[in-house]
Amino acid sequence: MTVLFSSILTSRSLGNFSFNVINKACACLKSSTVFRDSMETASDLTYIEVKDDNPLDLFREWQQEAKNCATIMPATFCLATVSKEGKVSARNLILRRLDEDGFVMMTDRRSRKSQNLSEVPSAAMCFLWAYKNDTGEHVARQVRIEGPVAEMKKEDYQELYDSEPLPCKIRSHICHQGKKVEWDELKASHDRVMQSVVDGKTDLPMPDHFVAYKLEPLTMEFYGQRDHLIADRVSFAKDSKTGAWNHHHLAA
Amino acid sequence: MTVLFSSILTSRSLGNFSFNVINKACACLKSSTVFRDSMETASDLTYIEVKDDNPLDLFREWQQEAKNCATIMPATFCLATVSKEGKVSARNLILRRLDEDGFVMMTDRRSRKSQNLSEVPSAAMCFLWAYKNDTGEHVARQVRIEGPVAEMKKEDYQELYDSEPLPCKIRSHICHQGKKVEWDELKASHDRVMQSVVDGKTDLPMPDHFVAYKLEPLTMEFYGQRDHLIADRVSFAKDSKTGAWNHHHLAA
Repeated sequence: MTVLFSSILTSRSLGNFSFNVINKACACLKSSTVFRDSMETASDLTYIEVKDDNPLDLFREWQQEAKNCATIMPATFCLATVSKEGKVSARNLILRRLDEDGFVMMTDRRSRKSQNLSEVPSAAMCFLWAYKNDTGEHVARQVRIEGPVAEMKKEDYQELYDSEPLPCKIRSHICHQGKKVEWDELKASHDRVMQSVVDGKTDLPMPDHFVAYKLEPLTMEFYGQRDHLIADRVSFAKDSKTGAWNHHHLAA
Repeated sequence: MTVLFSSILTSRSLGNFSFNVINKACACLKSSTVFRDSMETASDLTYIEVKDDNPLDLFREWQQEAKNCATIMPATFCLATVSKEGKVSARNLILRRLDEDGFVMMTDRRSRKSQNLSEVPSAAMCFLWAYKNDTGEHVARQVRIEGPVAEMKKEDYQELYDSEPLPCKIRSHICHQGKKVEWDELKASHDRVMQSVVDGKTDLPMPDHFVAYKLEPLTMEFYGQRDHLIADRVSFAKDSKTGAWNHHHLAA
């Protein structure tokens, strides 16, 4: 994925954040005074260190670091689903919760992604974090996750709905996600519901179409890159019999 | 997609950028002194204004604005593909060029995405930009694009390879993308190639497995949100007979 690399090289004024990254010694560059500090004439490899066999721990570590570095929307991921006819689609969602057994997301049951998941109950998630650390290094990290997706029981996500801010609850009530609308009609509908809230006539209970899913990871791949170095990748796969995770490096 | 919304609410210190966003008047809020400036008690709708029938123009406008606001990696998108068995996957790439007829991306022909595209030659792309504008508003915008994908002729992307920085060219030569590797072996391979470059023994010509694809958009969906307002969506579809685009708003 050379692609991330070039982008980082052209990114500007990313701020000043605190962050640690582990890299093996860059013998090739350090032995040369000619090819230092220039992407035109220098090159080396990033190295991802895996301290633990459980990729969820590495995921938490990377996401926390992204949060610490004030990365915008560190819980956002792209979700890819497919219809029974094999038509693929993708959109961004927010990770609502990370349980020991999987990644929790919420949506409208009438959406295309819910339709896809009812037909093909598996999906791919892709997180991306990019930031500059406190030593001035540009960092880009991606985590790709794949596995089966199952609808959760209402009692397991009721608290997620309950903690939604008001506009999100109103949206759940007025929007039939993905349906064609006239903006002015939707606005009028919004204002009516808003007025009902103001008048104390509704507390916007969780609608039946409000649904949560959990993706249980079977594979997780970590992509890490620092400055203009070539990226490293580490792929984790879950053993279907033992449930144990094993991992290896992949060429970028 | 309530999801983006919540994330924005919790994002921190996003900087201070210049930006313009168009919104219809918020009568509901402006008529109330009680429910102003608080996500706990206020709500309204974002409005996306479409000035032109060609969604590529709106895409360029949104991407340019993201660039102007120093958004990190504004050319990055998530690409979702599917295998002939219907297994979906997703990863981030960089938009290399936007032609009048489509979106250009590059990769390694031996990668999983290339394998997918050889089996199912269509894909979904998803761009996400999030930033704070110069009036302090948090903006989140997403563009989803779907359509057939075709491999390009070498002469149509040779210049893209030629303009790659050195580490990207080295990566193309040493990495069999997605293949299991021993990091130390890859590092040794890297250093050998780097030494050949230093010694003037190779100028790293474009490898045969370096390939570019173009996605021709048939549908494009724009998702826009400002602060804690409910998002607006506009969906464009291309008429297969006339090639003309038509559009309408969608519920978020």
